[in-house]
Amino acid sequence: MATIHDVAALAGVSVSSVSNVLSGRTDKLGAETYRRVEAAISQLNYRPNRAARQLKTGHTPMLGLLVPSTANPMYGQLALKIEAAAQERYGYRLLLANTHRDKQHEARMFEDLLSFGVQSVIVVSSMDDERHLENAVARGLAVVSYDRSIDLAEHSQVDHVSPDNFQAGYIATDHLIAHGHTRLAFLVPGGKTVSRSNKVAGFLKRVSEAGLQGSSEVIEGQVAETFGDSELADLGFAMASQIKAMRPMPTGIVTVNDLLAIGLMAGLHQVGLHVPQDVSVVGMDGLSIAAFTNPGLTSVSMPLDAMADAMVQRVVERSQQLELPPINMIFQPDLVGRQSVATPANS
Amino acid sequence: MATIHDVAALAGVSVSSVSNVLSGRTDKLGAETYRRVEAAISQLNYRPNRAARQLKTGHTPMLGLLVPSTANPMYGQLALKIEAAAQERYGYRLLLANTHRDKQHEARMFEDLLSFGVQSVIVVSSMDDERHLENAVARGLAVVSYDRSIDLAEHSQVDHVSPDNFQAGYIATDHLIAHGHTRLAFLVPGGKTVSRSNKVAGFLKRVSEAGLQGSSEVIEGQVAETFGDSELADLGFAMASQIKAMRPMPTGIVTVNDLLAIGLMAGLHQVGLHVPQDVSVVGMDGLSIAAFTNPGLTSVSMPLDAMADAMVQRVVERSQQLELPPINMIFQPDLVGRQSVATPANS
Repeated sequence: MATIHDVAALAGVSVSSVSNVLSGRTDKLGAETYRRVEAAISQLNYRPNRAARQLKTGHTPMLGLLVPSTANPMYGQLALKIEAAAQERYGYRLLLANTHRDKQHEARMFEDLLSFGVQSVIVVSSMDDERHLENAVARGLAVVSYDRSIDLAEHSQVDHVSPDNFQAGYIATDHLIAHGHTRLAFLVPGGKTVSRSNKVAGFLKRVSEAGLQGSSEVIEGQVAETFGDSELADLGFAMASQIKAMRPMPTGIVTVNDLLAIGLMAGLHQVGLHVPQDVSVVGMDGLSIAAFTNPGLTSVSMPLDAMADAMVQRVVERSQQLELPPINMIFQPDLVGRQSVATPANS
Repeated sequence: MATIHDVAALAGVSVSSVSNVLSGRTDKLGAETYRRVEAAISQLNYRPNRAARQLKTGHTPMLGLLVPSTANPMYGQLALKIEAAAQERYGYRLLLANTHRDKQHEARMFEDLLSFGVQSVIVVSSMDDERHLENAVARGLAVVSYDRSIDLAEHSQVDHVSPDNFQAGYIATDHLIAHGHTRLAFLVPGGKTVSRSNKVAGFLKRVSEAGLQGSSEVIEGQVAETFGDSELADLGFAMASQIKAMRPMPTGIVTVNDLLAIGLMAGLHQVGLHVPQDVSVVGMDGLSIAAFTNPGLTSVSMPLDAMADAMVQRVVERSQQLELPPINMIFQPDLVGRQSVATPANS
């Protein structure tokens, strides 16, 4: 097994430079030194000696939480539940960052967590590529990734906790088909995440089973780069015109999340289409606000309490035992029916 | 000026016990010792020597943020903006806690912040009594309190940043009166905060100016203890029946925040009343989601960006210079007109 001396030798730097990288004290390092140390750590698959590090840096009872944006109530709710679980069960406090799904932003946060002596982090909805997470693990962080269910890659030491997003897309679509809809659309913002791709796959699977491929489609929001999670409702609002212009027009729409659905319903109203008489809408997330829209939004609800508990428990376990084999926990969503879905008028 | 030795002598404990209290290492202290040290600190108006403490505990570039609940998108948005200001301007990370407006919870968080070496904290919407904040200041925390505009009490070293909540209540009410409403109600949850009281005062002032005291009233939500910020929309929904049963029924309603208004509108719809034809509604906060309700919610918007910037700047300044005189910064709200207000039908 590789030691810190092996890493230093391979990188051609001092042991203290390696130590600085491992503990996040990167402000004193040149970029080239940093890069060489990272490469050596990766090549040797080096794992720092946790016990020794703990003795030195002390244990900070804090849990890092990286979310795209707390302006999306889905992540505001999740942060609330994760904090409650962390505080009540382990006495941990929450170190929060909004990452806007920006990988560089996430990576900088990992640096800071290490320098603060934080050992556990939950990362919500990062983009497809997860190499920067593995990098953090290599330096001693326990990482649980939320909302990405994956085939467990070899060598990964990141745990994954996720709702069954494929199933979410599937049951939302099934609900519309059961109401007699044959022209379906799935609305999603540009910018791929694993969770979005899985929801789309569930939609396409159910559409294909029903033989509706020819009359159904996935519509990506054509949006400027500035559309983050705060602007999802704006995007849904804007996409209503696009829906109205389609010939034939879809009568049943699934959206990738509730904020998009809420904006879409407002936009449809604005262009003179009625929900559910002209168009039925199904959201996803199960935001509490979805019960109070007009009409009430039918949505696929995710079991946030159970997932928050599972993530906190797992990341604390892993921080105490970095060598645990990675796990992939999947939680089942539920369809909550309200008033935004009806039988299509012309069926 | 009192020294740590004076505090120890008055409390009848060792200097190291006082030091433990000051740095939040309270797990090793008996409750009685703790109480005596607190009393002595307060009696002597002792202020720890910041420079010496910093040398010892090191500076942790973290900002504490205490909010009632990130499940309320108002606080989710505020957390996002505060984190951005803290990170971009000072390289600070955010240590977040949801306090559910519980004073004990807030006090425990102060202990943890001190033990982590955190020197700055922003506290959002705590209840009327603020003595526990002064207590934290006495032990070396720089504290900015949000959403309480106060007469600056003598000896206070807490800064206050707030929207003009009196003005918010006033302009919301004025908007309804300008549309011809004469029977008005102000809806507020039970549980007094300074911001709620100020909004109510603004409502009553405008009502009184218009000579409408006899036909207007403040209605407190009769709610179980479990109603926290997450349940505000539920509360608004439930209060719709109460409104419908009033004789005469108010035609214009101001709510203390947008979540309450959104729940109320859904509840009014449920009991067969139309907004704005039967009842006009004005919310407060200016949540982005308010633009997407049906009808769109007229709301009093608060200048979150400017307030977040001001709070972060001030709390960092104060952490570097604890002796600064306290300030009370007030920001002006704006009414954003949408479709939830109309002329009353029978006027």
